[in-house]
Amino acid sequence: MNLILIQPNEMNDGDRVHLSGERAEHIRGVLCATPGKLLRIGLLNGPKGTGTVEELRGKDVVLSCTFETENPPRPAVDLLLALPRPKVMKRLWAQLAALGVGRIILTNAEKVERCYFDSHVLEPDFYTARLIEGLQQAGDTILPDVRIIRQLKPFLEDELDSVFPNIGKRFLADPSGTQNIFQCLEKPGEKCPMSGKILLAVGPEGGWTPYELEMFAACGFQTFHAGPRILRTDTACVALLSTLTLLSATDEK
Amino acid sequence: MNLILIQPNEMNDGDRVHLSGERAEHIRGVLCATPGKLLRIGLLNGPKGTGTVEELRGKDVVLSCTFETENPPRPAVDLLLALPRPKVMKRLWAQLAALGVGRIILTNAEKVERCYFDSHVLEPDFYTARLIEGLQQAGDTILPDVRIIRQLKPFLEDELDSVFPNIGKRFLADPSGTQNIFQCLEKPGEKCPMSGKILLAVGPEGGWTPYELEMFAACGFQTFHAGPRILRTDTACVALLSTLTLLSATDEK
Repeated sequence: MNLILIQPNEMNDGDRVHLSGERAEHIRGVLCATPGKLLRIGLLNGPKGTGTVEELRGKDVVLSCTFETENPPRPAVDLLLALPRPKVMKRLWAQLAALGVGRIILTNAEKVERCYFDSHVLEPDFYTARLIEGLQQAGDTILPDVRIIRQLKPFLEDELDSVFPNIGKRFLADPSGTQNIFQCLEKPGEKCPMSGKILLAVGPEGGWTPYELEMFAACGFQTFHAGPRILRTDTACVALLSTLTLLSATDEK
Repeated sequence: MNLILIQPNEMNDGDRVHLSGERAEHIRGVLCATPGKLLRIGLLNGPKGTGTVEELRGKDVVLSCTFETENPPRPAVDLLLALPRPKVMKRLWAQLAALGVGRIILTNAEKVERCYFDSHVLEPDFYTARLIEGLQQAGDTILPDVRIIRQLKPFLEDELDSVFPNIGKRFLADPSGTQNIFQCLEKPGEKCPMSGKILLAVGPEGGWTPYELEMFAACGFQTFHAGPRILRTDTACVALLSTLTLLSATDEK
């Protein structure tokens, strides 16, 4: 935990918060905090701040909190991901939140097994805890929006433009791409960093079907290849998301 | 398995190979191969090729093999990594081999616990099996060289230049860097893709110490920051390695 996240409804005693459970254990056991110690804190979907340890009370910890005036920015990259096997998705939640992603849209696809949608790893209580774990690792407060889409086609045709307006860039990773991501982003006379919102689509094990690729192309997705190596979904997500995040961060400097 | 890897000493019957165990199970169960089916194969540290299923004999599979004339290229990026916790290292082996890395140099550092070096995840039989799993996923045949360094300072001072000649680029990821990796790579008038060998150094949880950072700087490492988010070692390795690999692959086109 590089930041202790506090839920807004826990702030029910002025600027003081009473923590118990895992966060209190971490503060006592790992950070070895004693009264007066300053800790990095954040309000979920709100600003970051500083918590001063006021008191260790039994197993609990009491912090007095001050917060910055502005929220951290929402990450520039959104992810549309064909739902991977539950075992893989379970591991991915925290990594995605740590890398920084604005939205996570999990969709069906021809090569996604229907039963994956019945997994407990798609229950909000389950994934919210994992996302918070990733935010606390990365030092962020902004919880990614999660949407679970059981039918890809109507989503792309009817909803995509409102969820992700057309002014952003839409990219799709597929071996059929003739350019890699840097070549996709370069325009004559421009260097590769870019600005604005990005939506990245990552396919299932086995890839998108030709019909699905056509649907994405019709929605303005540019296809790029991620090199000759075939990566597991989780490795591919981390690899592509981090590359796009680094590129978009470069532009802000 | 996107490629079935065969050890050179298994080719003891002309161009035919008898496979049993996991690979035979995969060929029969997942690929549902029958005689005549063509499979992507590769010789460990040798060329890729094609295997024709000749016979299913009990639980075994007999393939007749033809190989390309040239080996695939060794990946352009080498990794020097402060040894992470055994649980993390266990997961990393296959991912590193899948992403493609020429050498994996695992070192000690001030913030690496000594006991990590006694873990079974550093035994050659253990990690070679994991590396082969990653190669079979990615469709590569070239096993990364692995070196385990218990003392960082003498290695940097006495061995680094022979293991990794000075003509390559040396990069170190650390929050103290004032540029990100793209800014590090850009020279006036040049775009960010680059050529030649790259050595990437990734520190332990908690980072390198100022003394260690000085040693790396003295060895010609350029420091870059990987953005404001603090990533777990395994996420950071996948993120940085893939970004550098994509960048170096861009240059080859």
